[in-house]
Amino acid sequence: MAELRRDPIVGRWVIISTERSRRPSDFLSMPAHPVSAGPCAFCAGQETRTPDEVLAVRGPGSAPNAPGWSVRVVPNKFPALRIEGELEPTGEGLYDRMSGIGAHEVIVESPDHTASLATLPDTHLAAVLGAWRDRMIDLQKDKRFEYVSVFKNHGEAAGASLEHPHSQLIATPMVPLAVEGELEGALRHFRIKKRCIWCDIIRQEMHAKVRGLGRLILGEGGFVALSPYAPRFPFETWVLPESHRSSYEEMGGGELLALARVLGDVIRRMDRVLSDPAWNLTLHSAPLKTPALDHFHWHVEIAPKLTRMAGFEWGTGFFINPTPPEEAARYLREGVPKGP
Amino acid sequence: MAELRRDPIVGRWVIISTERSRRPSDFLSMPAHPVSAGPCAFCAGQETRTPDEVLAVRGPGSAPNAPGWSVRVVPNKFPALRIEGELEPTGEGLYDRMSGIGAHEVIVESPDHTASLATLPDTHLAAVLGAWRDRMIDLQKDKRFEYVSVFKNHGEAAGASLEHPHSQLIATPMVPLAVEGELEGALRHFRIKKRCIWCDIIRQEMHAKVRGLGRLILGEGGFVALSPYAPRFPFETWVLPESHRSSYEEMGGGELLALARVLGDVIRRMDRVLSDPAWNLTLHSAPLKTPALDHFHWHVEIAPKLTRMAGFEWGTGFFINPTPPEEAARYLREGVPKGP
Repeated sequence: MAELRRDPIVGRWVIISTERSRRPSDFLSMPAHPVSAGPCAFCAGQETRTPDEVLAVRGPGSAPNAPGWSVRVVPNKFPALRIEGELEPTGEGLYDRMSGIGAHEVIVESPDHTASLATLPDTHLAAVLGAWRDRMIDLQKDKRFEYVSVFKNHGEAAGASLEHPHSQLIATPMVPLAVEGELEGALRHFRIKKRCIWCDIIRQEMHAKVRGLGRLILGEGGFVALSPYAPRFPFETWVLPESHRSSYEEMGGGELLALARVLGDVIRRMDRVLSDPAWNLTLHSAPLKTPALDHFHWHVEIAPKLTRMAGFEWGTGFFINPTPPEEAARYLREGVPKGP
Repeated sequence: MAELRRDPIVGRWVIISTERSRRPSDFLSMPAHPVSAGPCAFCAGQETRTPDEVLAVRGPGSAPNAPGWSVRVVPNKFPALRIEGELEPTGEGLYDRMSGIGAHEVIVESPDHTASLATLPDTHLAAVLGAWRDRMIDLQKDKRFEYVSVFKNHGEAAGASLEHPHSQLIATPMVPLAVEGELEGALRHFRIKKRCIWCDIIRQEMHAKVRGLGRLILGEGGFVALSPYAPRFPFETWVLPESHRSSYEEMGGGELLALARVLGDVIRRMDRVLSDPAWNLTLHSAPLKTPALDHFHWHVEIAPKLTRMAGFEWGTGFFINPTPPEEAARYLREGVPKGP
């Protein structure tokens, strides 16, 4: 069973595997991708090879854990955290730990092994985004959980270990440090200005756009995509609702379709400009147990994997980004690759 | 010229290259390592191929920028930040930026292209550690700088782009976010307990060691190496002085030799246990302009590059570590590899 442990200095929680722990030799013999002939466990017709589904978007008359679905959510077969048990917060001198309780689920985005978010129809992508929402709403009922992190690794360089298109979610009994940092910074801004900082950012970027400048990539149907002012990574992109909303769970069906249009468009632009890069996506929404927050604005962060993080970055939290966001935004707006 | 920009939400500063900025096609044609026959610019006899040295440990009678040195510090030929100019803090609506002022230097650790920290004699490694210190002391005189980040990327997987053994330093007009986070967390602890949290950690780990448990790897000559309680990475290791010291710059010659013994020993143990892994090292010392701090304890963090950071990690700051630190410490204490 895994353990959740807190760094006593900075307060960062980490998940430590104690059961299937990796010995030194395991790192040496890290396998190349398991290549198997035939369909994978996420393909249509292979439903019995996964744990039972917790959610599926299915055609009328199709049975659970059988073909006929377009989006399917299953528990991760090798979860980082386990759903069964009590939290049992324990002290050990200076240190704090908790049993490794959480949910770790896989959102299979299509029955087709070769599909991708870039090629799915908008309505299908909206169903994926709806599955994220519906799982968050369901997991919110579990009083042990404070947060649901939804993320997607696309491509091997981004850490994807399976080819079949899928995203993941991890529900945890604490709010992740990165989101805590955003909540604190945004609250500081709100206390002084009485305004949401992301609303302010959108306003400033829209105003810059009028002058033909700035970092806005596109805006459509109530959603905007932009290059942030101080991105950690080249072509880092944020997608967010134009009007203030703190919780992703509250998105209605029409909004999800509009979000799918913008998100799909952004991914296709990245594919064109950067020749199908690997990328990571994370959804930042308000913590589960908070009421609607005036100072937090949910958003999606996408970063293509173009550079390698080295010692300076992880050791200091200081990033060196070789592409100014104004240029990244211009390339993504124009959407055409520049040849060498 | 580069620019320093601040994320308005979390306060993270990033370095944005605006001069030699990377276009999309530059990422596509990312070169494999430039392979060149013959000695590299850091090799003995090639001194004129680098900018003029700012420090060198030399035999008597040898001339600057000529052979006869054992450790040599030169400005980075392609610096992330530039030493010339004024800071010019500027606002742009919500956003804050500053001209890309800083120092970026390379510490060439040996004239021998094939040397490594694992094989250098302790006295030579102590001279490298002394060069870090002496450059920090010198850069401290520049009133524009708040912090000097010393780091080393060893091996291509860790981001090293040159084979010749070297470390780097970047002096910046602000304290990096990761160090700010440590300073805040440590001050919180100090305000309640009136004790340094790292001193508390060392005490607790030494006490655990008496009982044959815990995460201490080795302790010798006033320095300890340990696996932290909540490590982000498998085999992450911290090296720190046993008694309280906030600033690395204050280390005397005898202390640097003792540190070299422990650090060299740790690196050789990692090499044996993990078969010469790539690794990153960062030095965390108190900010340049602070007096001696009761709540901060300087330390070195080393992390072998064994796993890939994926979306969950960078998006949330939540890490999944497959090796419990107690096991990592045991392997490193025993120092022998385990075969498959």
